[in-house]
Amino acid sequence: MTLNVLFAANEYRWQQYQDPLRDAFANAGLAVDLFTETDSPEIMDYIVFAPNGTVSDFSPFTRCKAVLNLWAGVEQVVGNQTLTQPLCRMVDAGLEEGMVEWVTGHVLRHHLGMDAQITQQDSAWNPVVPPLARDRTVTILGLGALGRACGEALAALRFNVVGWSASQKDIPGLTCLSGDDGLAEALRQAEIVVLLLPLTDATANLLNAERLALMPKGGVVINPGRGALIDDDALLAALNAGHIAHATLDVFRQEPLPGEHPFWAHPNVTVTPHIASETRPATASQVIAENIRRGEAGEPFLFLVDRAKGY
Amino acid sequence: MTLNVLFAANEYRWQQYQDPLRDAFANAGLAVDLFTETDSPEIMDYIVFAPNGTVSDFSPFTRCKAVLNLWAGVEQVVGNQTLTQPLCRMVDAGLEEGMVEWVTGHVLRHHLGMDAQITQQDSAWNPVVPPLARDRTVTILGLGALGRACGEALAALRFNVVGWSASQKDIPGLTCLSGDDGLAEALRQAEIVVLLLPLTDATANLLNAERLALMPKGGVVINPGRGALIDDDALLAALNAGHIAHATLDVFRQEPLPGEHPFWAHPNVTVTPHIASETRPATASQVIAENIRRGEAGEPFLFLVDRAKGY
Repeated sequence: MTLNVLFAANEYRWQQYQDPLRDAFANAGLAVDLFTETDSPEIMDYIVFAPNGTVSDFSPFTRCKAVLNLWAGVEQVVGNQTLTQPLCRMVDAGLEEGMVEWVTGHVLRHHLGMDAQITQQDSAWNPVVPPLARDRTVTILGLGALGRACGEALAALRFNVVGWSASQKDIPGLTCLSGDDGLAEALRQAEIVVLLLPLTDATANLLNAERLALMPKGGVVINPGRGALIDDDALLAALNAGHIAHATLDVFRQEPLPGEHPFWAHPNVTVTPHIASETRPATASQVIAENIRRGEAGEPFLFLVDRAKGY
Repeated sequence: MTLNVLFAANEYRWQQYQDPLRDAFANAGLAVDLFTETDSPEIMDYIVFAPNGTVSDFSPFTRCKAVLNLWAGVEQVVGNQTLTQPLCRMVDAGLEEGMVEWVTGHVLRHHLGMDAQITQQDSAWNPVVPPLARDRTVTILGLGALGRACGEALAALRFNVVGWSASQKDIPGLTCLSGDDGLAEALRQAEIVVLLLPLTDATANLLNAERLALMPKGGVVINPGRGALIDDDALLAALNAGHIAHATLDVFRQEPLPGEHPFWAHPNVTVTPHIASETRPATASQVIAENIRRGEAGEPFLFLVDRAKGY
């Protein structure tokens, strides 16, 4: 039986995904007709979904067995009242590897104090050897697949890694904390903090003025997670007061970050244009094919979103 | 019996090392009188040595059982004709860790293209996601303790790591090459090359015009090894021709690097002031104490220099 799959994302994504998806379906032994638009939503078996695509009302998709999100974050769709079908997040090996590389790179950049040499070639020979990673504490907020992978990579480089998550985790090599007291303790130790939490009602503005004040003076904030995890005004105030030495931000409340936003011009903020990681078509297509195979075989979906938690 | 140990390095090092050395000797059960100068070289049992220190003629040290170098590199002392005593290199866990951090950080910096975001905050949102490490080849020249550790750390981040050494090595996770043909092959693959060779007659100017030309266009050179491994003029020519995209250099033929040297002002050269790594007093003192303990127990020294090879 041939399955009908609607690719509900924009044209750019379609150009990236059509060939990898067809390859992945063929390799999984699935016969699939792929659509980028439809007048017959009732015949669609699955929806591959991105929030900037063509679908916002899921109610006509009466046969749809699952909505398969192209991205790790689902905050723009999880609250959609018309979405009654199972919703799966993307957990992509390529996305995880890219995130580990970006986070490890920027943690090492701040740890080593690289910017001074990259930006100031003023013939001044000032040999200050940085401390060892074993004497530097990095706190990871969020211990999902991405946070855990980043924490493990940093621990392998001998950083002292503190991880915090809403529910208690146990990850070898990391000091795992949870709960409100745990969050305060994790921030008190954070010479460098990395935000990799999902965006939910509970995590919006999590890094506010009060919590930034818990960090040691001279601390560094790295945010490859979601822009709204941070209270922007509180961060700017902490940077201007010198309490936070630097912020490297990859995600923002509004993207592209508006040209007039003070983050752009701030000497102690590095803006990266949401490149920390991206789902990679080849590996993501394999995850989508596997979930469709599971759906057809009556097996549980991978990475099913808990609608109550929001991720 | 109390041993006489001469600390033949400068005053700055003495301030760093006197307490860690005394601690390490005590922990090793060694009774030691430490000297920073002597009128009686014939009573010294061991010399802790740095090339910028007080000893250049070893012939009066007739009782000396070993010269224990404070640093990993021995090229400034190994050819000293008066040195007939065993010479040991420093292989320090702290030095190795620092080198791994510096090399991994700068490899990731170039891999991710960080400089564009660090130096250009011009409100331009240009989201180009970097490739994955698994699609990037890093070549390490030199597979001693430091080169091996750096190669393993980069392989753990999934970089495709090619290692080259004079004699063939076998290191899990790395493609190990040797010999002249191996060097050419290692350079042909090197999107990023890291120099961690000892400086000997055979390795001086190893990275010359001919070998730079073997690298792919747009390659990056990272040198935390020894300045004289590179032909400076050839590197500048390759940078100016655009064949080499960037060089990050921590070591130079003359240090401090003279203010008028073209490396300082070159837009595609990052100068770091010999900070890639440094022997750490606490861990290095333990290595020195262990070697003295071995000398007194008649056991073989650690990290004994092969005078024929020069390292």
